[in-house]
Amino acid sequence: MNRIEVCFSPGEYHLYEADFQLIVVLDVLRATSAICTAMEYGVKEIIPVATLEEARNHQAKGVLVAAERGGQIVKGFDLGNSPYSYMNPELKGQTVVLTTTNGTKAINMAKTKDTVVVGSLNNLDALCTWLIEQKRDTLILGSGWKDKFNLEDTICAGAIADKCLESGLFFADEDSTVASKFIFRSSRENMFAFLKASSHRRRLRKLNLNEDVKYCLTPNNCTAIPILKNGSLVRMNHETIENAAI
Amino acid sequence: MNRIEVCFSPGEYHLYEADFQLIVVLDVLRATSAICTAMEYGVKEIIPVATLEEARNHQAKGVLVAAERGGQIVKGFDLGNSPYSYMNPELKGQTVVLTTTNGTKAINMAKTKDTVVVGSLNNLDALCTWLIEQKRDTLILGSGWKDKFNLEDTICAGAIADKCLESGLFFADEDSTVASKFIFRSSRENMFAFLKASSHRRRLRKLNLNEDVKYCLTPNNCTAIPILKNGSLVRMNHETIENAAI
Repeated sequence: MNRIEVCFSPGEYHLYEADFQLIVVLDVLRATSAICTAMEYGVKEIIPVATLEEARNHQAKGVLVAAERGGQIVKGFDLGNSPYSYMNPELKGQTVVLTTTNGTKAINMAKTKDTVVVGSLNNLDALCTWLIEQKRDTLILGSGWKDKFNLEDTICAGAIADKCLESGLFFADEDSTVASKFIFRSSRENMFAFLKASSHRRRLRKLNLNEDVKYCLTPNNCTAIPILKNGSLVRMNHETIENAAI
Repeated sequence: MNRIEVCFSPGEYHLYEADFQLIVVLDVLRATSAICTAMEYGVKEIIPVATLEEARNHQAKGVLVAAERGGQIVKGFDLGNSPYSYMNPELKGQTVVLTTTNGTKAINMAKTKDTVVVGSLNNLDALCTWLIEQKRDTLILGSGWKDKFNLEDTICAGAIADKCLESGLFFADEDSTVASKFIFRSSRENMFAFLKASSHRRRLRKLNLNEDVKYCLTPNNCTAIPILKNGSLVRMNHETIENAAI
């Protein structure tokens, strides 16, 4: 039996991370949903950076840079973190540098571990199938909102934990995992309505991002599993194929 | 309109505390349930201390000292944090020094604020009636388990938030508050069963504390509201009466 647990936000990561070398990072609204979508639509790699300064350094070298703060594209950058913007055929095969309010911080926090993968509702089944195959202790890390708990990452974490626990190959010990599973099960019939009360939904509503939210809450419209390799997120299958070709 | 929010554990207190001068501290299993019970049964004051060292200093001066770590009475001390032990008539009018794994840490953390009160399911209605009368921004602080989220404090926090929000005099902004309210509403028909999966319940089950747990999960068997005054928890009404007598 392997263990699967949920850590609500980067601020609590130090309390949960010790026993895990496999981390699943979530930022459902919208960074990790966008990353999964980008891989699905053929973006070659995404380099997550924590600060706008790092992002500007990459931009100065001619790399395509996506930067989001507070739900909006930062002025002077090419892209934000709307999943729709990554469906653009012109991005196929490209490298994108990405910095967001919460998601890229969580990815960077986890990068000392052996394996870091990116999850969302969009790649839920593909990710869970892979996690169950791995037979490893797994920590699901929500990006939260400025280190605070958020509902949408908790629902997604609960969905992943629930599926893995149902396989009978995992157990969970933490109350955070029990609560996540419970919140997912209660919300799954209508996540959009459930999240009406969520603080981040309200934040995004003001920005007129309803279509993005609906997309991010749609399970299994992607099969790509982004994995961190040498500081870059790449699509897991593609990477395997590339390695085979070398 | 006043704001009411939930902070899951002391580890996140710094993210939530800035806007609040009224803090409700919870440690349902079992410190704050025991404190409410002690006040109900006539204990005069409880001095919360964070460390066993401080507790020993008080004991050396002849004060009655209660000390719990990991769910058990610490060797060499008179009491732990079983609510039943505070129903003893010999404790009437006495001063007790108390240190516990999580609860007294949370109380001490909050003590820079204007008003700190102690909550539990046991004094739920009395506490909420008082909070609604106050018309003040209110932060509910769960003690958690070693800075981690726990289910029982979250259920109780959700019960308090729910009652206050229902008055129409409060609003909530944080996802932690939305989630707490939701978890409370889903668990209230059978909290004992709901908490079966909780990590702390399992910890206490090993210690054969089922009766304590049942007591702590019983709403409204107390009306006492403990309030922090000059470093001591006293019963709110008694204190008012005493002040009037001076």
